[in-house]
Amino acid sequence: MKFACLLYEDMTSLDLIGPLEVFGSVPGAEFVYASPSSEEVSGGQVSAERTGLALGPAMHFDEVSSADVLLIPGGTGSRELTRHEPLLEWIRDIDRTTTWTTSVCTGALLLAAAGLLDGRRATTHWAEFEHLAKLGALPVHERVVRDDKFVTAAGVSAGIDMGLVLVGEMFGELLAQAIQLGIEYDPEPPFDTGSPDRAPTEMVEMVRAAATAND
Amino acid sequence: MKFACLLYEDMTSLDLIGPLEVFGSVPGAEFVYASPSSEEVSGGQVSAERTGLALGPAMHFDEVSSADVLLIPGGTGSRELTRHEPLLEWIRDIDRTTTWTTSVCTGALLLAAAGLLDGRRATTHWAEFEHLAKLGALPVHERVVRDDKFVTAAGVSAGIDMGLVLVGEMFGELLAQAIQLGIEYDPEPPFDTGSPDRAPTEMVEMVRAAATAND
Repeated sequence: MKFACLLYEDMTSLDLIGPLEVFGSVPGAEFVYASPSSEEVSGGQVSAERTGLALGPAMHFDEVSSADVLLIPGGTGSRELTRHEPLLEWIRDIDRTTTWTTSVCTGALLLAAAGLLDGRRATTHWAEFEHLAKLGALPVHERVVRDDKFVTAAGVSAGIDMGLVLVGEMFGELLAQAIQLGIEYDPEPPFDTGSPDRAPTEMVEMVRAAATAND
Repeated sequence: MKFACLLYEDMTSLDLIGPLEVFGSVPGAEFVYASPSSEEVSGGQVSAERTGLALGPAMHFDEVSSADVLLIPGGTGSRELTRHEPLLEWIRDIDRTTTWTTSVCTGALLLAAAGLLDGRRATTHWAEFEHLAKLGALPVHERVVRDDKFVTAAGVSAGIDMGLVLVGEMFGELLAQAIQLGIEYDPEPPFDTGSPDRAPTEMVEMVRAAATAND
């Protein structure tokens, strides 16, 4: 089973790594990393936002023509890519070959900009619901949203939940449950502020302003 | 504030990225990535277990002499490093400069092998409690364990909780709460199998055998 993951400058590393850690335990899983930068320019690497962590080995997306699962992570770098027509065309092309097309956080904006979420239920980071709606999708406040073969996750950490839900769909719940045990996913968030529904309004507005500064 | 993160071959990428995503939103945070491989050999990259994802830019640990926070992730590659005396010496040396010394999953085995957890309460992946005890620590079944300046997290995904707890300690709860909202950490694990206390016994033994195959 071939997983193609989009890598790009100023992506959010956890958007990728959450589901990737889950998919990594699928028997026979293979991974390819595709990027809008050519290998000569990027050295086959992209830098994640904030931490400067380099991720790779990224080949140019032109070199990746099919996948069973497409995974599009989010990040501040996703904003300008919503206008990168060759990348959007690649997303449409590869989607024709996939069994599942997935995103985490603002990765959904790229799927929507490519036209793949037109009229479909989807989710993204809570601060980007209007943006997602403007791009033609029907935003839904759920952690993981499935519409046909399109599986979108809410902000950043939701990719772990999405990965487990998808492995359950693909291979049955026993494997997904065993992976959940293997990564000891028994979360204990220290605060009750992970959702805008429960965080203080002032905090929500501050985080929204920071999250949407590049829109 | 300088965060030094150990990178090594066959590390678990989520062990690193969970806390890193949290620390990345700390104002003024700087990150250095230190590895047991020399840059000439590794090209400044290490490959994560299972997914082949390359992480960097790693400099040799000799080039990193101090940090405010040391972060040691786990992974199958940690096993042989428990006998890598120059690395253990570096861990002891850098620990003398830190305000906080932290680990995720089997990263605790490296702290323990370096002698830093002798007689201290600590945690690791649930399948590695005996191993941790043999190395001199007092294993505790908690998600995040703090003993003096040593903060250890349980398996893989527990690094997110650890990161938030530590930011709360370092900078106060408001910043940690805002980061939790920013990464939308409002987890919805799809199954109730994230802990060996609640997963079926047969599944626990299967996952334990896989997790400890390289011990």
